[in-house]
Amino acid sequence: MSILVVGTVALDNVTTPFGKVKNALGGSATYSAVSASFFGKVKLVGIVGKDFPRQFISFLISHNIDTNGLDIARGKTFSWSGKYTFDLNNPQTLKTELNLLARFNPNIPEEYKKERFLFLANIDPHVQLSVLKQLYRPKLVVADTMNYWIEHEKKALKKVMQKSDILVVNDAEAREFSGESNLLKAAKALLAHGPLLVIIKRGEHGCSLFSPSFTFHIPAYLLEDLADPTGAGDTFAGGFLGYLASCSRINEGTFKKAIAYGTIMASFVVEDFSLNRLKKITKKDIQARFIHFRKMTRF
Amino acid sequence: MSILVVGTVALDNVTTPFGKVKNALGGSATYSAVSASFFGKVKLVGIVGKDFPRQFISFLISHNIDTNGLDIARGKTFSWSGKYTFDLNNPQTLKTELNLLARFNPNIPEEYKKERFLFLANIDPHVQLSVLKQLYRPKLVVADTMNYWIEHEKKALKKVMQKSDILVVNDAEAREFSGESNLLKAAKALLAHGPLLVIIKRGEHGCSLFSPSFTFHIPAYLLEDLADPTGAGDTFAGGFLGYLASCSRINEGTFKKAIAYGTIMASFVVEDFSLNRLKKITKKDIQARFIHFRKMTRF
Repeated sequence: MSILVVGTVALDNVTTPFGKVKNALGGSATYSAVSASFFGKVKLVGIVGKDFPRQFISFLISHNIDTNGLDIARGKTFSWSGKYTFDLNNPQTLKTELNLLARFNPNIPEEYKKERFLFLANIDPHVQLSVLKQLYRPKLVVADTMNYWIEHEKKALKKVMQKSDILVVNDAEAREFSGESNLLKAAKALLAHGPLLVIIKRGEHGCSLFSPSFTFHIPAYLLEDLADPTGAGDTFAGGFLGYLASCSRINEGTFKKAIAYGTIMASFVVEDFSLNRLKKITKKDIQARFIHFRKMTRF
Repeated sequence: MSILVVGTVALDNVTTPFGKVKNALGGSATYSAVSASFFGKVKLVGIVGKDFPRQFISFLISHNIDTNGLDIARGKTFSWSGKYTFDLNNPQTLKTELNLLARFNPNIPEEYKKERFLFLANIDPHVQLSVLKQLYRPKLVVADTMNYWIEHEKKALKKVMQKSDILVVNDAEAREFSGESNLLKAAKALLAHGPLLVIIKRGEHGCSLFSPSFTFHIPAYLLEDLADPTGAGDTFAGGFLGYLASCSRINEGTFKKAIAYGTIMASFVVEDFSLNRLKKITKKDIQARFIHFRKMTRF
């Protein structure tokens, strides 16, 4: 089945020890939509300005992404500027220009409202709530967030969590939200707020899935050369939900495989800047790395 | 088959956010020998002083550990005092009293020299080399070390690596030895110094195994309550080699299982101070956690 992705579409300026890009395609919805598109049809809801390069839209469309929900408004596209040092887990934000994002209040197109798989990529939780209200009957809602919303919009975020099936956060966010340093305790505290599953991403250290009935841990796919970690978490989430939506049944086994596919998608995206690496891979590459990953983690 | 363990036997003073112990049983050889003893017979080579409590020796013997190679000399036992804050990966060393360890030059008992499985636990690499010279024909040599020897005895350590089949280090040590921040590159650099396999421990983030022909990654066994991380790496190594020595054949599959058993043993030891947790578990507990661990990592 298809999935609906709502989040930011951005023009990023990123510097890492391995290079830099200016006005590159970025944004939480972009990374996750393109990642999910390898597993099925994707509909994208977001906002950009007239400055958003036409070839970026062509790129999305070439990935079988329905961009009818992408509002192209008068004004400037949201822009994030960041810098990574050798600690590639934590970027330093140099500048965040909200621009059109500041007044983004999405109108979900009528033909999107019946969507069953929804990914609420990182964006203001009020926007996430507005989208939830507009959808008729989503079957599986996955929500991502970031430290800023935990600090400034915790109330709205808690409402999002109540209405979501799966929450995706990183380890620092899980600790910050829960006040628990131990990840198992943090996960339990997050589960108490409503989601059926909590995924805690740990960057280069892998990822864990928590539910009241089972837990699952996976290492990262170790790479020798890494160019730019931007969007790794979004790409993970897109691959995760994209794979799930492609399954005829969803159970513990498919959740675990979905985590592995998400990990593999993230391992590709960090090999180059922006979404450049995803332009060059096929389902065959994904499958080969998945098989390799299984071999290097199974005992 | 039985294994021979050479390393430190210590009296530890440890403080963590969860409590403290004074003059507790510790040392690299102690943790690894007791851990390995769950899988088969262990022979221990080390040195202690007359101050070493008799009940600690009884405890080792009760674990089927042959202590004929434990020299009880006139003088004081090696003692380590350390403190952990909430970052449980990195203890602060408050005091290291070498005492008898400073002049430790082991004489391997004649009946130990035919041992086929040797664990050179963390100790001065000159001591490790002396043991290697005395053994007739070890089949599998596993060597551990620490940052101090990398900084001060790199030449001797390199000789140990040349004569070892498997090197066990943590991520910081791997980076320090190789000068490579990327773990894959660091592992390759270490492999170039002779060992057939390199194991890089990453504390609460799991562990990786590198060989020229395959790699293997495993997360840690996540615990809700952790009391004292002291000896986790030694306990890991003891479980790893103990399991291998119990196998009728050693291949890629048994190496991976051995890593999992090592991880499980480490997950037990950190649940209490000193070796207290290992006093209370049985093979059945180990097997149950192993099965659970497999379930929570397989996809």
